[in-house]
Parts: sequence; C-alpha cells; structure tokens
Amino acid sequence: MRVSRLFLPTQREVPAEAEIPSHQLMLRAGLMRKIASGIYSFLPMGYRTFRRIEQIVREEMDRAGAQELIMPALLPAETYMESGRWQVFGPEMFRLRDRGGREFCLGPTHEEPFTETVRNEVRTYRALPMTLYQIQHKYRDEKRPRFGVMRCREFVMKDAYSFDRDAAGLDVSYRAMEKAYRRIFDRCGLDYIVVDADSGAMGGSGSQEFMVKSDVGEAVIAYCDACGYAANDEKAEAVPAPKPGTAGQPVGKVHTPSVRTIEELMAFFGSSPARFAKTLLYLADGVPVAAMVRGDRELNETKLANLLRCSELEMAGPDEVLRVTGAPVGFAGPIRLAVPVRLVADREVAASVDLVVGANEADFHLEHVDPRRDFPPFEEADLRTVADGDACPSCGGPLSLCRGIEVGHIFKLGTKYSDALSCVFLDEEGKENPMVMGCYGIGINRTMAAVIEQHHDDHGIRWPAAVAPYAALVVPVMVTDPVQRQVAEALYERLRDAGLDVLLDDRDERPGVKFKDADLVGIPLRLTVGRKAADGLVEYKERTWDKPVEMSVDEAAAKTLERMGPYR
Amino acid sequence: MRVSRLFLPTQREVPAEAEIPSHQLMLRAGLMRKIASGIYSFLPMGYRTFRRIEQIVREEMDRAGAQELIMPALLPAETYMESGRWQVFGPEMFRLRDRGGREFCLGPTHEEPFTETVRNEVRTYRALPMTLYQIQHKYRDEKRPRFGVMRCREFVMKDAYSFDRDAAGLDVSYRAMEKAYRRIFDRCGLDYIVVDADSGAMGGSGSQEFMVKSDVGEAVIAYCDACGYAANDEKAEAVPAPKPGTAGQPVGKVHTPSVRTIEELMAFFGSSPARFAKTLLYLADGVPVAAMVRGDRELNETKLANLLRCSELEMAGPDEVLRVTGAPVGFAGPIRLAVPVRLVADREVAASVDLVVGANEADFHLEHVDPRRDFPPFEEADLRTVADGDACPSCGGPLSLCRGIEVGHIFKLGTKYSDALSCVFLDEEGKENPMVMGCYGIGINRTMAAVIEQHHDDHGIRWPAAVAPYAALVVPVMVTDPVQRQVAEALYERLRDAGLDVLLDDRDERPGVKFKDADLVGIPLRLTVGRKAADGLVEYKERTWDKPVEMSVDEAAAKTLERMGPYR
Repeated sequence: MRVSRLFLPTQREVPAEAEIPSHQLMLRAGLMRKIASGIYSFLPMGYRTFRRIEQIVREEMDRAGAQELIMPALLPAETYMESGRWQVFGPEMFRLRDRGGREFCLGPTHEEPFTETVRNEVRTYRALPMTLYQIQHKYRDEKRPRFGVMRCREFVMKDAYSFDRDAAGLDVSYRAMEKAYRRIFDRCGLDYIVVDADSGAMGGSGSQEFMVKSDVGEAVIAYCDACGYAANDEKAEAVPAPKPGTAGQPVGKVHTPSVRTIEELMAFFGSSPARFAKTLLYLADGVPVAAMVRGDRELNETKLANLLRCSELEMAGPDEVLRVTGAPVGFAGPIRLAVPVRLVADREVAASVDLVVGANEADFHLEHVDPRRDFPPFEEADLRTVADGDACPSCGGPLSLCRGIEVGHIFKLGTKYSDALSCVFLDEEGKENPMVMGCYGIGINRTMAAVIEQHHDDHGIRWPAAVAPYAALVVPVMVTDPVQRQVAEALYERLRDAGLDVLLDDRDERPGVKFKDADLVGIPLRLTVGRKAADGLVEYKERTWDKPVEMSVDEAAAKTLERMGPYR
Repeated sequence: MRVSRLFLPTQREVPAEAEIPSHQLMLRAGLMRKIASGIYSFLPMGYRTFRRIEQIVREEMDRAGAQELIMPALLPAETYMESGRWQVFGPEMFRLRDRGGREFCLGPTHEEPFTETVRNEVRTYRALPMTLYQIQHKYRDEKRPRFGVMRCREFVMKDAYSFDRDAAGLDVSYRAMEKAYRRIFDRCGLDYIVVDADSGAMGGSGSQEFMVKSDVGEAVIAYCDACGYAANDEKAEAVPAPKPGTAGQPVGKVHTPSVRTIEELMAFFGSSPARFAKTLLYLADGVPVAAMVRGDRELNETKLANLLRCSELEMAGPDEVLRVTGAPVGFAGPIRLAVPVRLVADREVAASVDLVVGANEADFHLEHVDPRRDFPPFEEADLRTVADGDACPSCGGPLSLCRGIEVGHIFKLGTKYSDALSCVFLDEEGKENPMVMGCYGIGINRTMAAVIEQHHDDHGIRWPAAVAPYAALVVPVMVTDPVQRQVAEALYERLRDAGLDVLLDDRDERPGVKFKDADLVGIPLRLTVGRKAADGLVEYKERTWDKPVEMSVDEAAAKTLERMGPYR
C-alpha cells in the first residue's frame, strides 16, 4: 500500500481526555476516532491490527477445539429475564423496544443465548463436551467510559462457552481455554500474569483473570514472588495482622467533639490508625448492614457483597446513618446501635484488642474495646483489601501490589445458567442432568490498547511483529530523486510479491516528517532508501533500535523476510 | 473436523413460516436458528460459509483499492439529524437512549458517520479519490421480516463509500465498484443481472442493483433479450402503447349504479380494461394528488413519489376521497373535482382517446373522454409499472419480466451528504468544493441465502466450491469396520494436511442417515469408504452428480485436491 493513498490521519495534538499512552497514541497514529463517549471507529491502520488480534484469537480457539458461530447483538429480553440478569445488569445494559413494543437489549455478554441454543439443540451426553465461541460486538453503558477503548461502551469480545457433563469435564475444558489464552497473549507480545479472580455477578466456582501489568491498569493485583501466588485485590485473601495491645481494660467513653475521621482520631488520641476500627454502614439490596475494618485498612466492597450475596451494595446516606446509629456520620460503632443490624467485622478487627470505635452518639467514642468481649454477636470475615507487604496467604512471604489491565477472564460457571434456563442432557442411564458450564472472554479492543501500553516509546508505537498493521515500511528519502524512487519501488514490490504487507511512503514530504510518522505509527521494520541507493545500499532499522544499519538491497530484503516470518 | 464433534443440529421438520427453499434449508441443515422475529444466529456450519462470503467481498474490495475500517453500530442521533434521515427512516430505525438520556440509533446504513469522518480528517484534493468500506452489522426494524435472512432485522452489510473531486472521478470509482461486485458475485457462483434502479431515499443521480434471478425474489426485473436492457420495475421506463380509439366524440355521462371496479366497468360497458382510466387519490406528504393510469395498468408508487419528490406517499382514505372528489370511492375522475388538486396522468392515458373515467358523482361515469381535450390542466409522466411484453425503452423489442433477489446496490450519491454535512475539500486553486460521493452495499446474509436459492435440489444444498463450509466429506460407511475406519481416517488426514477443510463423518450411524445428512448439508465432494476399502477403492461423488465413481484412494485424493483448487 502506498502511504499517499492510505487513509491515515495522524495528529500532533490529542484531546486532554486522552490521559494514557495507548489512548493518546491510538488517536495520534490515526488508528481510531471517537464517535461518541466510549464509542470509537477504527480507521484502516487500526483495523488491520484489530483484525490481526482477532485472527490470533480465532486460530487459538480453533486449535483448542472450540467452534465459532455468531449470535445476534440485538437480543430479546425474555432469556435475560429467565436468568435474572435483566435486573442484575441495571443501567449498564442498553435497552430498547422494537416497533411492536417488544423489549430487547444490546448483548452485554451472551451466556443466555448460548445456553438457550444448546438447550434447544443438544439432548444427550454424546454431544458433550462442546465449546462454542463467537467474536461479536458487546454493549455496556459504562457509567464512566474512559481511557479510549480500555473502558468503552461498544467493543468486540471473543466469548466462549463450554458445556460439560460434570465438574471434571469442566476442569478439562477450562484448562484447554487457559492454555489457549496463554498462547494468544504470548503471540500478541504481552507480558501478563494469570491471577485468581472473584467470580462476582457471573456466579460459579472459580475464575482467573489474564492481567497485563501496566501502571495505567484499573485493576490491582497482589502477587508473591516467593511462591507465585497472584490474585486481584477483589479476591486476594488478606491475612490478619493484629497489632499488639493490652486486652481486658475497661471500656471507656471519651468525649471527642467534632472528631470524625481517622486522621482527626489519630491527632486526638495520638495513636497510630491501627488502634481504630471503622464502622461503615451499607445498604445491601436496601437492607442496612454494618461492616468494620481497621482504621488503616480499606474495606473491599466486592468481598463484602460476596459475603452478603447481594446484587446491589451502596454506602448508606447521612439520614440512614442517623436512623441506624442514632448519631450523625462520624460516630458509628458496633455497640448499642439504635436499630440492630447485621454486623460483620474483618478478621483482623475480630482478632484485635484495645480498639477505639464510635459510640453511636454525637461527639463520643469508646476506647479499650475488645471485640470478642464487647461487640454484640457478629460475623468475622475477610473484608479488607490486601496491602503492599501483607503476608502471602499461600506461603506467608511478602505480597507485592501492581496495577494490571484485564484482557481475559475465564470462569467456571457450574450450573448457574443451565439450572436457570433448563439446559439439561440425558446421561448414559437416561437421567436428566444440568450441563456444567464455563465461560471465557477476551476483550479485543482492550488487548490492542494493552499491547500499545507495553510497546511504545516517546516517539510512538512499537508494534510486535505478530500484530503489526504492516510488516515493513519502505521510505525513499527523496521521492523526486529518480534513483531513490526506483530502488524503493523495486524493494517495495519485491517484499510485497514475497507475501508481506508492506507500505511505501511515496509522499513528497520532508524526510523528518516521514521518519516522525514512521516512528509514531510503529511499523516493525523501516527500510530507508537514500543517497546511497545509487551504490545499491539502503538502511535497515527495526523500530526498537536506536540506529539503522546500512546494507545492500538484497541483504535488506532477505533480513526483512527472515525477521517478519512470525508475521505471516 | 469430525462430524461427531461438530455442532450441527440438522432438522427433519421446519416451521411453517419458512416458506422459501433457502430459509427451509438454512434451518434444516443446521446453518442458523431464529432468536427473535427477523433475528438469527449462525451456527458453526452456517458461519463458515458466511465468513467465506465475507472474505471474498473483502478480497475484491481490497483489490479495487478500497480501504477497510469499521464504524460503530451504535450511533449518536446528531449526524442523522443533520442529514435529515433521523426523520426519514421513521419506524424502520431502531432508536434508544443511553443512561444519560442521549439519543442513539442502531445504524441502518452508515453514510453519515463515513461522511462525518472524512469531513473531519480530509482537507485537500491530494487525498482524493478515496473509497472506504466496512463489513458491519446493520439494523432495520422491518415491518414484515420474512424469508429468513432474506429480509431480517439484524444483518451484515459490506458498505463502501467513495469520495471524489468531481462527477468524472465518481464515474471511475463507481465503475471500479461495479467491476468488483461482478467479481464477487461471480466467485459466489451466482447467476445475476445488473439492472438500472431507482435511487429512492438515498438521493443521487444513478444507481444499479445486482439481482439474482429467483422466483422467490421480492423485486421484479424487466429485461430485454434483444439489447440487454435491464431495470427493476420501479425504474424501468414504460413505453406508452395507447389503444386505438375514435377521437372527437362528445363526452357522455353514463348512469353506472354500484359499478366501481374495473371488473364491474368491463362487465357494464362490455369493453376491455384498456378503455378505462383509473383515477387514484393519494396523499403526498399529506397533500392530496390525483394520479391516473389505464384500467389494465398498475400505478407504480415509486415513480409517482419520485415525480412528486415527496417522502411519504399513501392512498387517501374514503373521507378524503369524498372531500376531494365529492363522491364515494369508485367514482373518482379527473374532471370537475370538488377540490382542485394536482393531477398527473400516465403518458399512455394522456395519449389515449375515447376513455371512460369516473364522474366525481356517485353512480356516474363519463365516456368518450379525450384527455387533451377534456381534462383540466394536467401533467404527463411515466407512472405505470412495465408489463410483460411491453416495448423495450432502449430498442423497442419485447421486455420480459422476472423476479430477483437484490444482493448488491451501487449508487451515485453526488453531493447529497457532503452538502448536508459540509464534507468539502480544497482544490488546486484553494477553493472549497463538496466531495462527490458514491455508496455501495452488499448484504452478506442475503447473498448467502441467494446462493442457496440457486444451488439446491430436493435433497438439500449444493454449495459452490468457493463458499462451501467444508471442501470435502469423507464418509466411512461402517465406522465399526477397522479397515474402513483406517482408510477413511488416513484419507481425511491426507486431505487435511494438504490444506483442505475436510469433514470426517465418524458417527456410528446408519449409512442412510449419513448420506441424507451429506446431501442436506451440501459439501461439494463426498468420498465414501465402503466395503471395497480393503481393495484400496473408494467412491468419489460430487454433490451435483447423480452417481459416484469408484477409484483408488490416490486418485480420489488427487481429484479432490484438483477439483477444490478454487476453494482455497
């Protein structure tokens, strides 16, 4: 392809809302454009890489024995009502009615139609196991779309669903997908880790996320270098580390006028935050619940929601706090609540002594509180988010935290959807059993952005060969020079005829502009045809190199074909 | 792929709503399933053919120099409001609001976002010409979805848009697309004709449709074997053929009690229908208009709407007829209307004499009417639909009519969208000009159905090689026979290793079931491994043949690879 004909609108400036490198570079390098908040088009250069990633995903899914099909994106409400997710998805689901008034959604994820299809078509154990997948648009009306295609509202997902006879079968299908995912992300040139994850609203018995390590990732990962343990912070078990204290002191009521926050308490008591226990009031599906973590800890709402098995969890407002505790915000505590509610405390709080808690009375706190002596009946659970340096739940060694971009997620769903939608099979004895399911997703758009996050420098993108939009770029320095032009054209045609996707920058632009664009767009190999073309010499430069190497045209062509083998 | 592992739910029975062969066969052969009215999933076997057609389209678009990108399917209302089509599409457009209340549609066709993108990114003549395309889902809330994917509500379209500096440039871009379309439909194995078409709501100066001849087609095509003229019946010019009559007779008022229809008039007057002229009352964007065609002719509403340049055209109701004509339905005529309205007559009516028309008075008609003498001022135009045997407007020879399935449509849009959305470029003199656009669509789903309509027999589908889901099917007659099994497996692996997509029917089913399924599913080549496998002999049968031919395994393998060359 000739660059003069290519629709490649590069930009020098990007809007301020593009905060992270991949978002900035995808705009600057002319890969995509914003059509609406969280909704993007992919321009020709961007769509080439997009399709390369799709193709890698497809090849590895096929290799793993999964079968491709495609479901509609516009889906009738009924099956989602049957599964209960019509409600669960809430405002994140795009909903509409057809001209007849029938309700539809734009599929946010496709468990329902896959399960329904298999229910309607598969009768016996002989058809199982079976893994089906599609590469299809998904729609989620995100509250805060951001970071370009990293968190957007229309995106493409590869979603696969496995159907097995039993849990042992699911294990096999799940492992096959895990292996395929590793191959996919390896081929895309990503440095990633596989972490234990929370199964959340999807239900099921286990799940793992494929996380690309990146400072701009929205997820936090806890990992242990000693034993290899890794989990996202919604799942990572926090080992209690109670601070020492003197048990058995009498509880004292302390006048703490206007002392509400942990910072104010620290100043007032002259103590470390570990001496305080926060009491946070939530509404779990509308029912008030009090949850406690230590003053220096963060309550993990996913852990709390899972414990409570609720679908909606929100902080209670000031009125509700006043009603339940009898006091304004800032003085909630576990003891003598105005309205008795379910009380859950992090294991660390439960194992501590000599704590300061709110007194449920304006301007008062209680000190020397020993939970197991003084609290009303309460539940203990892992409620806090792990912190850097926490003990690894697997080996006790120190955990490290890093940020990650979730590019893939694999779930053991179990029978959640097959029970809800009656997706059953007859076993060898003619007995009906629910199929045991797994589901497996890869966000194509986000994978593309993650590749850029890990492969760029100050000048632009550095595409790994396997997902590059073009393999090589031939740049005649002066297109008006007949020799340069002719050598460049011949080299371009030679590489193209050998089966490579090659670009020829035939624009009559200053060399600086062409080189700048080349670095920005990030084609893996650049072949520069300059003054020495008359001597049969050109410059060969890989995008990751600082400097080019001079060689003959033949050498350059051979080296290009050898280097870009994995591209084809 | 082993048939035992394939998700291929064939059916013996299909629902009554599947009226046409392609719809029935796509369900019976397990290619697709209905998810909602006019909304289908493609199952693995169907999706393979679907993607083969997509790939042919992509290759030919690329070959023609078009560049692939992708626009969202979920599109903000604003640009469609700017172009005016937010209104024009009416209930056919799926509309929704996001969580912030902003209006969106599901793209029914993408002129607007393409034009907007090019407007934002292209400044000068140097970037032109440019043809961009996508293969993307489209959404149209059809009033009556039917015939399976032939007229459905979610479908995939390849839509291309060309941007040129002037009309001469558009001609070149348009011809390139026409050529690409011919290659695409040739490669798909379709027998089609290219017809002149009405440009309708898309606007513009010319368009052609690619019509696959088929009795189940919804479109009617008029064509001339003598000169090659072809047009759809909304566009085909009807040459007037006035019946001889005696001009100059005095107009007579005839009492015609309860004689309202052409049939009743024929019986009453004892004349052929050509002696009568029908006056039909329409509302064109709400304004009443009287339109006339001969009694034996059909008024073509598209021609009338184009003449009137209205966006909505509907027959007037009885109240409106009474108000405008002063008489109940059945007695409308051109002379002495109660309310003077615009009067348009088909050219044939205008050229006739001695006609019978309604008298605008209950139970009365007028006879011996000579339009040019007796009508109030009126317009003459081509308003009628061509009939079989009509004179060809190009050479005068007889026209034939046939039905067709519209699989492709190419339009010269001109500056309709570039004017509406200010898509301009600077020419060599620095002057701003609107880009001159074309648009070009192919319905992938409908193309697939059209292939089946032209390639099936009583037993099932007969896929042309280029779009077949698999190239060959190896059938061991008795999988329990070790020799048959081993020869079949070896042949299967040999073909697979040679790069063909092959199926092995390894199911332990009766031969009759396997052969029935093979015919239904329509794989081009069947290699049957039966009792003579022990002697190294197998049966080679093409799907279009009546009988197999016996040959050695080597011959069968060689013939398969030779025959399926175009498949790869």
